[in-house]
Amino acid sequence: MKTLQSIQARTGAALGAPLLATTSQQVDAAATAAAHAFEGWAASTGEIRGNLLRGLASALEADRDGLVSLADEETGLGPVRLNGELDRTAFQLRRFADIAEKGLAFDRLDDPAVAGPPPGGHPAMVRQRVPLGPVAMFSASNFPFAFSVLGGDTASALAAGCPVVIKAHSGHLLLSNRVFGLVRAVLSAQKLPAGLIGFIQGGGTDVGVRLVQHPAMAAGAFTGSTRGGAALQAVANARPRPIPFYGELGSINPVVAMPALLAEKGPELATLMAGSISLGCGQFCTSPGVIVLIKDAASDAFVSYLTTALAAQSPHAMLTPGMRQAFEAGVAHMLAAGAKPLLHEAGKPEAPRPFLAEVDAPNFIAKAELREELFGPSSLIVRAASVREAIEVLSAVGGSLTVTLWGVDAPTADNQALVRAAMAIAGRVLFTGVPTGVAVTAAQQHGGPWPSSTQPMTTSVGDAAMERFLRPVALQDAPAWLLARNGRPC
Amino acid sequence: MKTLQSIQARTGAALGAPLLATTSQQVDAAATAAAHAFEGWAASTGEIRGNLLRGLASALEADRDGLVSLADEETGLGPVRLNGELDRTAFQLRRFADIAEKGLAFDRLDDPAVAGPPPGGHPAMVRQRVPLGPVAMFSASNFPFAFSVLGGDTASALAAGCPVVIKAHSGHLLLSNRVFGLVRAVLSAQKLPAGLIGFIQGGGTDVGVRLVQHPAMAAGAFTGSTRGGAALQAVANARPRPIPFYGELGSINPVVAMPALLAEKGPELATLMAGSISLGCGQFCTSPGVIVLIKDAASDAFVSYLTTALAAQSPHAMLTPGMRQAFEAGVAHMLAAGAKPLLHEAGKPEAPRPFLAEVDAPNFIAKAELREELFGPSSLIVRAASVREAIEVLSAVGGSLTVTLWGVDAPTADNQALVRAAMAIAGRVLFTGVPTGVAVTAAQQHGGPWPSSTQPMTTSVGDAAMERFLRPVALQDAPAWLLARNGRPC
Repeated sequence: MKTLQSIQARTGAALGAPLLATTSQQVDAAATAAAHAFEGWAASTGEIRGNLLRGLASALEADRDGLVSLADEETGLGPVRLNGELDRTAFQLRRFADIAEKGLAFDRLDDPAVAGPPPGGHPAMVRQRVPLGPVAMFSASNFPFAFSVLGGDTASALAAGCPVVIKAHSGHLLLSNRVFGLVRAVLSAQKLPAGLIGFIQGGGTDVGVRLVQHPAMAAGAFTGSTRGGAALQAVANARPRPIPFYGELGSINPVVAMPALLAEKGPELATLMAGSISLGCGQFCTSPGVIVLIKDAASDAFVSYLTTALAAQSPHAMLTPGMRQAFEAGVAHMLAAGAKPLLHEAGKPEAPRPFLAEVDAPNFIAKAELREELFGPSSLIVRAASVREAIEVLSAVGGSLTVTLWGVDAPTADNQALVRAAMAIAGRVLFTGVPTGVAVTAAQQHGGPWPSSTQPMTTSVGDAAMERFLRPVALQDAPAWLLARNGRPC
Repeated sequence: MKTLQSIQARTGAALGAPLLATTSQQVDAAATAAAHAFEGWAASTGEIRGNLLRGLASALEADRDGLVSLADEETGLGPVRLNGELDRTAFQLRRFADIAEKGLAFDRLDDPAVAGPPPGGHPAMVRQRVPLGPVAMFSASNFPFAFSVLGGDTASALAAGCPVVIKAHSGHLLLSNRVFGLVRAVLSAQKLPAGLIGFIQGGGTDVGVRLVQHPAMAAGAFTGSTRGGAALQAVANARPRPIPFYGELGSINPVVAMPALLAEKGPELATLMAGSISLGCGQFCTSPGVIVLIKDAASDAFVSYLTTALAAQSPHAMLTPGMRQAFEAGVAHMLAAGAKPLLHEAGKPEAPRPFLAEVDAPNFIAKAELREELFGPSSLIVRAASVREAIEVLSAVGGSLTVTLWGVDAPTADNQALVRAAMAIAGRVLFTGVPTGVAVTAAQQHGGPWPSSTQPMTTSVGDAAMERFLRPVALQDAPAWLLARNGRPC
């Protein structure tokens, strides 16, 4: 039997006893159990779905102290952040409970028959939606609650009427198992089938790949690296029957700051930005990895303020020793590609130091290496000669979860062009503040053109996340008994 | 220079002078011109978009006689059908004009700021949509108007704010060129850039593949074979920056008929079904390729009625000599796989004869060859021992544009299970009538799980077709000038 070992983030020491990796047979069994649970769950009422989601939220909160303590040991993210993340996760579960109870998954469009020949005439049509089926859900490393076992993918899939099989992330195995223990208890207390929420763990193709390949799975949902996500997407596409794969992958989240605003508020904005870069040790998918400045004295001053503010930050340990190594390698890679270091200090064994570098826009546009996501407390300043060149920088980035535009309050031609360029590449465009912090709300869009998402029309955060798991079906001349179900699958 | 030759469908003879294939350089020029047209078109008002779509509809109607005559020579579909299809195409263009004028592409969701810390508190958010950019549009063979140069993909992309570059289908080159002549005249009369609607023609990877690979293209839209669509989808996914590819591919459109209804209306339904099988020489993506019957005397009688009714049909010529050959090869392939022929006659050189065969459900489920789309006037009867086995047949089909269920008017457990199985695999489920004929209406869903669609959450017919080309963007703390645009890109 393969075993897995949890690691303390801060020390790299083994934590707890080894865990058994899920076998191929157990992966198949989880997929099959999810398929068996599908029919009943797809036909469940909004109230039943809401009860489950609320039960899960309450179970998280009831075990808060133990969960946060364990998460802190495994991830090093600290209790303040982890308590906040647990709050967010419970909030999100309850928000999807609301959505389920309102019956939004059962929304339908009635399109009554029109007499006469086509194209004007047509039969009675109803457009409603069916849940896709069991979802293969891949947890992320950097949000051990909000993008993990009971994260947004799980909540939105359950609200849509889909079972899930959750692949735990190796970075917080003990926490994942503890949360899954809560899941089992809630399913049992609510007399729901255990197969409705499955759980697997382990590396290699015998676990995650096998799950995506299993004929019972109807979709994949993933948050993680571009490399890992692209590989799993290829597996989903290579199935005899390809399935939708929703991957939220890499993002470098450019910030474009206009000199006039920097002249006015440079020190304040530098402090804000330094905090965003080092927040959570830079391990956010929305971490501002690129700061585009127009060549100007105010920009020069901002760089100086930012360097100072960032030097004053003390990032905590990274999530895993592997991530720490990848960060240092990424820094070396960026320097080798010609980035000029502004802040580059050797860290201590327990935590990295923030890294800041700069490069001219033409180099940034020419070298793909400079546009790769560097996961950790770092950012790259890109010096553009003009707004036009700043726009070329955004186009070179191509796809990003966010773009932040500072100082575009007036509708000048330059500002309009910047907004256009930002909207062309990002799922979310911010006009104040920093991109870290993704509101769980109705209008959120967390997903953009490749590589930030494999499915840029979808979001993995916010109310529309549920849409990923509901497929439209038109019913033509449907019988009365079916219409009486008001959009709920039978 | 490579040349292309139009062919008369009925005789296989050359029609008109050879045409020049588009060169690689011209493909690049069309993509670049579309990119240049994008900014202005994305920012255009609904009225401007509506004017263009209405102008295109009127231009088609004004040239009706010439277009239908040419289409008939190239496709053999006959003037009645072709006039109807032209009506439908004009209807569809005007429907998307209505949609554009109503501003549906500019719909937005206002999500005002909520005071307080997260997760409950959040900044002011607005969720709106941006057009994706230039769309590579691949015409289909079998609808020379409705899924071709000015078909639904073009209409919905233009309504969304996206330019298109249209790849003409080799089966109706002269018609495509004539329609594109109308396009140029309308663009010129409306003082719109010529690059807004581009046109290319030719085979090989130097035309269609090059278009999908071009960095300026933001999406692909395709209607055609599973093989061709899958190949182009792979090209879209293999780009340095993958783009959405909307392919409507193969579909075998099962019909499940319950014995009680067949006992009541067997002859009438057999006549209806025979007409649907041979309509347009079976060259519909919604042609009923599989008829699932429960073993019963009424089913036996229906097979007999259907065989007779189908023998009385006289399909017209197929679209191209290549399709005729593929049909005969497909028939031979199905017989070799064990299907027992019920109606199998040698056709004349100018037209094939209808083909009907039968097979037991276990064989159908076991042999993938029996589940392949056979494009032409044919259907395969699948004999199931029970409703349970009929459901297994639907599951084996896996993905289909349509499923038709005859005789499920009562909410019995069997009927509910059948409806569930049908909704699990199809984009549209019909409860009366036949699947040929796809209403252009609000509730339509033309697209289902693989292989019927590469993107099963989307439709290529009906109002929601526009959604394929609009990507959500969340604006956080947007300035007043941007909000004043009411969802229209700047």
